[in-house]
Amino acid sequence: MRIVDIIDKKKQGQELTKEEINYFISSLEDGSMPDYQTSAWLMAVWFRGMSDDETANLTEAMINSGDVIHFGELSKKIVDKHSTGGVGDKVTITLIPLLAAAGVPIAKLSGKGLGHTGGTIDKLESIPGFSTSLSVEELHKQVEKIGVAIGQQTQNLTPADGKLYALRDVTATIDAMPLIASSVVSKKIASGADNIILDVKFGSGAFMKTSEEAVKLAELMVKIGHKLNKSITAVVTSMEEPLGRAVGNSLEIIESLEFLKGNIVTGDIAELTYDFGVLALMQIGKFIDEETAKSYLKELIHSGKAVEKFKELIIAQGGNADIIKDYNLMPQAKYKEEIKASQEGYVKKIDAYKIAYGCKLLGAGREKKTDTIDYSVGVYLNKKTGEKVAVGDVLYTIYSNDETKTLNCRKYCDEAFEITEEKPLLPKQIYAIIK
Amino acid sequence: MRIVDIIDKKKQGQELTKEEINYFISSLEDGSMPDYQTSAWLMAVWFRGMSDDETANLTEAMINSGDVIHFGELSKKIVDKHSTGGVGDKVTITLIPLLAAAGVPIAKLSGKGLGHTGGTIDKLESIPGFSTSLSVEELHKQVEKIGVAIGQQTQNLTPADGKLYALRDVTATIDAMPLIASSVVSKKIASGADNIILDVKFGSGAFMKTSEEAVKLAELMVKIGHKLNKSITAVVTSMEEPLGRAVGNSLEIIESLEFLKGNIVTGDIAELTYDFGVLALMQIGKFIDEETAKSYLKELIHSGKAVEKFKELIIAQGGNADIIKDYNLMPQAKYKEEIKASQEGYVKKIDAYKIAYGCKLLGAGREKKTDTIDYSVGVYLNKKTGEKVAVGDVLYTIYSNDETKTLNCRKYCDEAFEITEEKPLLPKQIYAIIK
Repeated sequence: MRIVDIIDKKKQGQELTKEEINYFISSLEDGSMPDYQTSAWLMAVWFRGMSDDETANLTEAMINSGDVIHFGELSKKIVDKHSTGGVGDKVTITLIPLLAAAGVPIAKLSGKGLGHTGGTIDKLESIPGFSTSLSVEELHKQVEKIGVAIGQQTQNLTPADGKLYALRDVTATIDAMPLIASSVVSKKIASGADNIILDVKFGSGAFMKTSEEAVKLAELMVKIGHKLNKSITAVVTSMEEPLGRAVGNSLEIIESLEFLKGNIVTGDIAELTYDFGVLALMQIGKFIDEETAKSYLKELIHSGKAVEKFKELIIAQGGNADIIKDYNLMPQAKYKEEIKASQEGYVKKIDAYKIAYGCKLLGAGREKKTDTIDYSVGVYLNKKTGEKVAVGDVLYTIYSNDETKTLNCRKYCDEAFEITEEKPLLPKQIYAIIK
Repeated sequence: MRIVDIIDKKKQGQELTKEEINYFISSLEDGSMPDYQTSAWLMAVWFRGMSDDETANLTEAMINSGDVIHFGELSKKIVDKHSTGGVGDKVTITLIPLLAAAGVPIAKLSGKGLGHTGGTIDKLESIPGFSTSLSVEELHKQVEKIGVAIGQQTQNLTPADGKLYALRDVTATIDAMPLIASSVVSKKIASGADNIILDVKFGSGAFMKTSEEAVKLAELMVKIGHKLNKSITAVVTSMEEPLGRAVGNSLEIIESLEFLKGNIVTGDIAELTYDFGVLALMQIGKFIDEETAKSYLKELIHSGKAVEKFKELIIAQGGNADIIKDYNLMPQAKYKEEIKASQEGYVKKIDAYKIAYGCKLLGAGREKKTDTIDYSVGVYLNKKTGEKVAVGDVLYTIYSNDETKTLNCRKYCDEAFEITEEKPLLPKQIYAIIK
């Protein structure tokens, strides 16, 4: 078998066999394939795509390229919820304690993401003392003890995907559907979960810009998951405006706590958290009826069990649980600037990308893995889409540690808001559910 | 400017600017662009193609990446005829002395080709003593003295093309039209000729398999040449069966001499040599009428002036000119095996690729630049397409230095011949002329 023939075959639009894909990935792994052949193949895949079988085989080859975590008997019950990433997306943080309180074991491994506003790991680490540096054994023990643990992906998971991703990044081949799908699914499966719920986002603040693309990606990931014998659901959701009101690491933790305490009962965060929660409970067979499942989850909030579970999690991972009662113990920004409306009407739109970009300028995210994040900064949306605005009302608030950065951030956030006279229709959160 | 953006732009099917192409080639040249980006770009070009302007800009950038040879005033008159390569193609060798005898200055630079049966340089070097290691100055002086010189491309011509070609070879991107066209034309222009005649071959024994592809390539090369202010003609010719009867280095020199001596007056070699000769004479404005030009060339053969010019060339480049009178002074093969027909009828077809492959097995060509060529071996076609065959007639003769190799060669050559009862139509040599 020659790599050049595998490249040529893909270039001609033919389907690669399992053996060819395995040979390709093992040549990538052992370093015998030079990067210039890998990248030519990646570009050919960008143009030709891959069949479902090819994508599943690629996913499997990437899983087998590194460690695969096993939680033993627990694996079958564990649920892993993963989002392709969005602005203000704290639904993983609201959902995890809620499901754990419902008795669903959660062992979540996340990577430190690159992005404008930090990932789940970063948000959690904005809680003073909270550590995600758990070994697989520690994670396993903690799940057995309190039913929930969140760790960083420090293991050698899917190294082949890591190599491919690094090349995709510099050869304009990031946006190839089968490569995105196999990258996400391989990492989830290697992380040890048998039940996977994926939130595939589309819109201004997401990687996929249109619902059509997101549905295609979701369908593909579900197909791969099924081919690899996993229980998997993908939910296609809108990311045109930020989720919730808070964007920025510590601000998002506070908003999550407000939901878990039962202080936020309507709006996108509440809706999505319940929707995902219901899906998870039904996927593992705990309920067969949506309404009953939802009532059950609401009761966990109402009774304080959900926030109690979050407290247990914080304590187990070394964090200061007093933040739950006193938000002033969270990292605080030096400046807080309220931006007021100069026009009356209704908020028609808040561009997620622009808000995220503004937050990035404040220091809320990282571009390189070595960048440090300022946990305290961010933007709070005092008004959301559909809400009425009078002149002088606070539209949004910037939390910043640098006045120049505040100005730069404001430029983007001002552009993000669109105010109209007529009351707009609220966009629906869930666009499609693919099982 | 970032290379990844240039790759992405090409991937999206957009036209690259001259600045972007220059930046790409200079980054290739100075080593600042890693090979994996180059190869991703090559694959994107394979899929998207390039506009005529892009291809001309790429060609110019490749020319400027290395030395450009100038013959001063002579440049304007010099004609360079180049073939994309075919089996038994000795028309460059028959044409050069003929045109030189007609007073057209020829300064030809050829690369040592890779292929089944040797290139022009290899064929000439099968003449004992003949050397093509001339410096540009020696070449120039020889052209001024006797009107003709043939040298190896030892200069640093179009190094960017060399680098691209090496990557194309291992990333399945050889067969991209704009890359082939810019590679050929850049080398010709860097070699110093202002008048270029290209023989673009198609068929079993050529790189382009169909006439449509060959016409597209020819049109593209002519457009690029014109954009770069060169006088250029491309002739699309058939390479379904070998040209002439001899395939193999010294055998082809002998056949060329037979033509130059006036002993071969009909058939493909004679036709093509005259056709190209007439084109060249008209391209440089020496004649405006085809018939007159052709008569003039025929007279140069008839009078012995053409073979005399070849003699001058051989002597000037250190070769033994006695070979002209005594072919036994050319490298001789140990074994000569005549293969006879077992079936009567007409030769319908002789597959050029199979004959070439047979010759390769004898040692007539090279796969790697470091391979050595056996000048003496080859195949002589005693019968050509359209000729009548009786049982027992010699179909072809194998010249070999190894009896096992003879057997291996015969296997392919036997398969190459197709005999039918009906007399077939003779294929036309010239399919299209593009100016």
